[in-house]
Amino acid sequence: MIKVGILGATGYAGIEVVRLLTAHPEAEIVRVVSQSFVGQKISDVYQNLKGICDLCCTALDVDDIAGSCDLVFTALPHGASKTVIPSLYEKGLKIVDLSGDFRYNDPVVYEKWYGEPHSAPEVLKESVYGLCEIHRDEIKTHRLIGNPGCYTTCSIMGLAPLAAAKIVDTKNLIIDAKSGVTGAGRSASLPNIFCEVNESLKAYKVATHRHTSEIEQELSILSGEDIVLSFTPHLVPMQRGIFATCYANLTKKMTTGEVLDIYKEFYKSEEFVRIYDEGSLPEIKHVAGSNYVGIGVVVDPRLNRAVVVSCIDNLIKGAAGQAVQNMNLICGIDEGTGLRAAGMYL
Amino acid sequence: MIKVGILGATGYAGIEVVRLLTAHPEAEIVRVVSQSFVGQKISDVYQNLKGICDLCCTALDVDDIAGSCDLVFTALPHGASKTVIPSLYEKGLKIVDLSGDFRYNDPVVYEKWYGEPHSAPEVLKESVYGLCEIHRDEIKTHRLIGNPGCYTTCSIMGLAPLAAAKIVDTKNLIIDAKSGVTGAGRSASLPNIFCEVNESLKAYKVATHRHTSEIEQELSILSGEDIVLSFTPHLVPMQRGIFATCYANLTKKMTTGEVLDIYKEFYKSEEFVRIYDEGSLPEIKHVAGSNYVGIGVVVDPRLNRAVVVSCIDNLIKGAAGQAVQNMNLICGIDEGTGLRAAGMYL
Amino acid sequence: MIKVGILGATGYAGIEVVRLLTAHPEAEIVRVVSQSFVGQKISDVYQNLKGICDLCCTALDVDDIAGSCDLVFTALPHGASKTVIPSLYEKGLKIVDLSGDFRYNDPVVYEKWYGEPHSAPEVLKESVYGLCEIHRDEIKTHRLIGNPGCYTTCSIMGLAPLAAAKIVDTKNLIIDAKSGVTGAGRSASLPNIFCEVNESLKAYKVATHRHTSEIEQELSILSGEDIVLSFTPHLVPMQRGIFATCYANLTKKMTTGEVLDIYKEFYKSEEFVRIYDEGSLPEIKHVAGSNYVGIGVVVDPRLNRAVVVSCIDNLIKGAAGQAVQNMNLICGIDEGTGLRAAGMYL
Amino acid sequence: MIKVGILGATGYAGIEVVRLLTAHPEAEIVRVVSQSFVGQKISDVYQNLKGICDLCCTALDVDDIAGSCDLVFTALPHGASKTVIPSLYEKGLKIVDLSGDFRYNDPVVYEKWYGEPHSAPEVLKESVYGLCEIHRDEIKTHRLIGNPGCYTTCSIMGLAPLAAAKIVDTKNLIIDAKSGVTGAGRSASLPNIFCEVNESLKAYKVATHRHTSEIEQELSILSGEDIVLSFTPHLVPMQRGIFATCYANLTKKMTTGEVLDIYKEFYKSEEFVRIYDEGSLPEIKHVAGSNYVGIGVVVDPRLNRAVVVSCIDNLIKGAAGQAVQNMNLICGIDEGTGLRAAGMYL
Repeated sequence: MIKVGILGATGYAGIEVVRLLTAHPEAEIVRVVSQSFVGQKISDVYQNLKGICDLCCTALDVDDIAGSCDLVFTALPHGASKTVIPSLYEKGLKIVDLSGDFRYNDPVVYEKWYGEPHSAPEVLKESVYGLCEIHRDEIKTHRLIGNPGCYTTCSIMGLAPLAAAKIVDTKNLIIDAKSGVTGAGRSASLPNIFCEVNESLKAYKVATHRHTSEIEQELSILSGEDIVLSFTPHLVPMQRGIFATCYANLTKKMTTGEVLDIYKEFYKSEEFVRIYDEGSLPEIKHVAGSNYVGIGVVVDPRLNRAVVVSCIDNLIKGAAGQAVQNMNLICGIDEGTGLRAAGMYL
Repeated sequence: MIKVGILGATGYAGIEVVRLLTAHPEAEIVRVVSQSFVGQKISDVYQNLKGICDLCCTALDVDDIAGSCDLVFTALPHGASKTVIPSLYEKGLKIVDLSGDFRYNDPVVYEKWYGEPHSAPEVLKESVYGLCEIHRDEIKTHRLIGNPGCYTTCSIMGLAPLAAAKIVDTKNLIIDAKSGVTGAGRSASLPNIFCEVNESLKAYKVATHRHTSEIEQELSILSGEDIVLSFTPHLVPMQRGIFATCYANLTKKMTTGEVLDIYKEFYKSEEFVRIYDEGSLPEIKHVAGSNYVGIGVVVDPRLNRAVVVSCIDNLIKGAAGQAVQNMNLICGIDEGTGLRAAGMYL
Repeated sequence: MIKVGILGATGYAGIEVVRLLTAHPEAEIVRVVSQSFVGQKISDVYQNLKGICDLCCTALDVDDIAGSCDLVFTALPHGASKTVIPSLYEKGLKIVDLSGDFRYNDPVVYEKWYGEPHSAPEVLKESVYGLCEIHRDEIKTHRLIGNPGCYTTCSIMGLAPLAAAKIVDTKNLIIDAKSGVTGAGRSASLPNIFCEVNESLKAYKVATHRHTSEIEQELSILSGEDIVLSFTPHLVPMQRGIFATCYANLTKKMTTGEVLDIYKEFYKSEEFVRIYDEGSLPEIKHVAGSNYVGIGVVVDPRLNRAVVVSCIDNLIKGAAGQAVQNMNLICGIDEGTGLRAAGMYL
Repeated sequence: MIKVGILGATGYAGIEVVRLLTAHPEAEIVRVVSQSFVGQKISDVYQNLKGICDLCCTALDVDDIAGSCDLVFTALPHGASKTVIPSLYEKGLKIVDLSGDFRYNDPVVYEKWYGEPHSAPEVLKESVYGLCEIHRDEIKTHRLIGNPGCYTTCSIMGLAPLAAAKIVDTKNLIIDAKSGVTGAGRSASLPNIFCEVNESLKAYKVATHRHTSEIEQELSILSGEDIVLSFTPHLVPMQRGIFATCYANLTKKMTTGEVLDIYKEFYKSEEFVRIYDEGSLPEIKHVAGSNYVGIGVVVDPRLNRAVVVSCIDNLIKGAAGQAVQNMNLICGIDEGTGLRAAGMYL
């Protein structure tokens, strides 16, 4: 049994880690840390867990965590991770960090997008970017994982095969992404209340969203070119799901079928990736509630442009599920353990 | 391994049985029967199942089912069950029927509410009402289960402790129930389309809904009185969930705490029932995605009237989950197997 | 032109008054008061109003209001109204107050439900309860109107004809009400955020909601008996609408048609009340976006109990629309002016 | 008074014309034609209209229409318009057609996208494309208007100023559009039911949607180049609204402010167009329920690419509202009559 602590357990990403682990046969939750709910049962904060996980929330105590846990998930507000993690890392813990703090190869890129120097560049060097399907081998040999963002996972996985095949015009990549509202977290802010979100739709952080930098980092590595692209996030009135519509000009004439062959080959061993046959496209409903990624392609012959549609459950493959997948990898157990539930559809 | 067939697998209740069984360690789906989708993969009809359950839908063939299955779930349109089930029953199969056809002790009651005579009264006698928490012992000794309706499960479980304690005015019981839209099934009818349901709410079949008769049957048995009550169903713009608000005049002066004690005692051994402490009430969000029932009580001291709030996931505890619970019971395995997933909350 | 000021203009009730008045041919908005947004254009806070109403929000200044307005709508947080209104009233202004502070005939009832003594009992005496269809004549002769609550309007109008006809068992009245989320106002509180409300449903303030007292006050007057009843509010994932399902035992044997005749007679001159024919019931969708009230009745012959379904748009007939209707009445203009828009349906 | 008939009055676009006209001071509805509901009151089909418009639906009778109406709105299923309209046109009626049949300058383009020859090319020549802000002068002199599609209005208005200014790379225009579900019409088809749409999102008709051809026709005229572009429609779980995110590479280096100046100049006299200031973007909520168009721009300086966000209410500016605007224009009355209602916001 892997003994697990979850820091930031009462946020939406944290509680989804908790929920997934209650059904994981090889992990045991031993600590749920939440500054806001110290002393309360986690099942009083999230009453779906009554009788299933009734642990009390504790305050952060690094020594206690180190003494009781093999691995921690850190799902802390931005900035908090990079102060806490060095001390946890020093104690020898395995760490899967769900913040943006340990997702970068270069602290300069971090500083550019986060507006402040990275406070732990030495520890950053020890981390690996936790997109399992792309960095599986490296992940297995590390114990600090920068778990990717939700928009990021969906976007990179949608474009990775094209980037790696070096068949796209890298100057005209566009990712138009749509997110469910859980992506905004459990924050009681005005733009997040029901009547401001429901029956509406908006774009936000146009040309400035931080996840852009993760996408550029990974696609640049895959393509061997320095990619700069457009990424536009939108908020949609649904709870779960990220849907990325990606536009890429092809540098040679290709059909939908030929492009799909590239995708099928690229992901041929991947349990959690579903490439759709020509004429069929994934929908949020196919993946919500699961760790699966759905990807479909249409090539517009008039423009020789590929339109790639990629979708995931933002809380699972885009956060907690991928974090558990990373846990499985770094703990040397079967990668899909605890993650094989079908999506809910309804 | 229990070999299972699902008849009517592509309706919403049927597909929820399929989904639950994909995660059940002691059952194997061997047949998915669907007249509308014969020859198609069930994972092409419900694409959340791609790679998880890719069986092809078949037409109904009683001999084939009898030769390949130990147990069948029948989730057929009203009326279809009672023609098919006698022949399946005769073959020695275990059967959990999700229709209304085998839920009655008395075929006269069936005829009164369904407007036609029951066509298989002899087989009806062999069946037992599958509300597990109330009829567990009988269920274990039968092999034809009339799995309760969604409104019914929620309503009966909400009032059963009061009825059994014989402390309510049985002439003034009122159940005001609210259902998610999955309750209407996968029917492409005008009142079921998004723009007719969303941002609205309506009552329907006021004073005439068939589930009333099941509720009256069961509460009458529990109370030892012939109960006639008001049951009003409403349609609410959400997918899953039944929420029943039940009103019962108490025949002696009691506090909320005293009534809650009766509930806690009544359900003390029940894994899937959560009685809420005074001051707290269940919400759909606490149970959606799970087999759990949440029940809370407030006694209005001004009126000495108990307001009981009961809620379930209509597709799980109100249909497919309870059907699996019944399968577990009649197959002699641990009752909660495959049903312990926490609700989704999000 | 009636010169109008709106206090609390940036709350949901306040902004709905603003929106309705932008289409009112005989009223002119001259002041929008909002403590939180002083100096900002109201059309920057609610961008649907861009180019339609671009007034700047001001802080409250009683002299300025008195000097510029003929009438004020006060849509202030609970408690604020009763401190501000006496000074406005003293200046000779006409006032339609949307809070609970001036809805009571008896300050003792107010104190009982609001938990503190009424601070302006003398001014309270000058007020009239602004349910137009019930108190039209009194309203016309007053200049301080306690505009009814949303649950209240819907519930009283649903039961008024039965109460007035004195044909119900007044000891067993039950009102089960369902509200859209705008009823919770524009408050950035955790239970109000999208992911906590969407795809869920809950009851709240069971047996303790303050609107109960308004309903009891008005039905007691109509029936000539001291009525105590059950009122249970529920929160439903939609924006607009209140739906009240009311249960009343009839004291003599009656059919649905006979009860409907009583309703049609009671409301025969009412422009904004629609009594549904037997076999048909109102839905939120029929009234949302309008000032109309829909009422339908089913008598359950098994129990001789009337189930009355009543619904309104909580922001219009349940708040801002009725407030404008009251303005029209006390200003001596045609009562329906500016209020005749059809519901949106979609 | 303009005497108006609405053909196809019980579809979603048709009923929105009806709703808007009930509040129009210079139009009178004299006929509502609906094959499916002949003999029924329109207010029994859409009960929001009870007491407001209680006309009975009639079957189509060209002579009756010609004898009673000055102008007809045709909101018929695709293909039906082009058989009916020539006979109506011949009778001298003014016609605003909401189908795709009379939106093309070239019948060859129609045939290419609709898969069949245009059956009335002579009448097509008499029509004008009814995008009021672009073709106002021509509209005024015609009496057959091809009212634009919903996606089309939103997309063309979003890109028109850039096209007209000839400052974009016309080979890389991308429009990623998101629509509410009313866009799918009142069809009782499986993909349209609540539980298939809600909590999901999908792309459809990728690279093949017919509205693409309208957008290309109009932007080509404005830019003087033959434009071919990517247009991707998505279905979003909300009722009203189209949101188009448009990507355009600028051919010279420009700031957001400079591009916005072009937009403000282009639309400077337009009552129903709102150009947002830098740093602010339109949301569906700002326009839903109104005839307004909201447009915002962000130039990404890293790529010198403009991201233009445009949104409308698909049923109003994208269908019925623009149709009424066209009626006003061709009848010589104030263009905004009956269309100045603010959006609902809530």
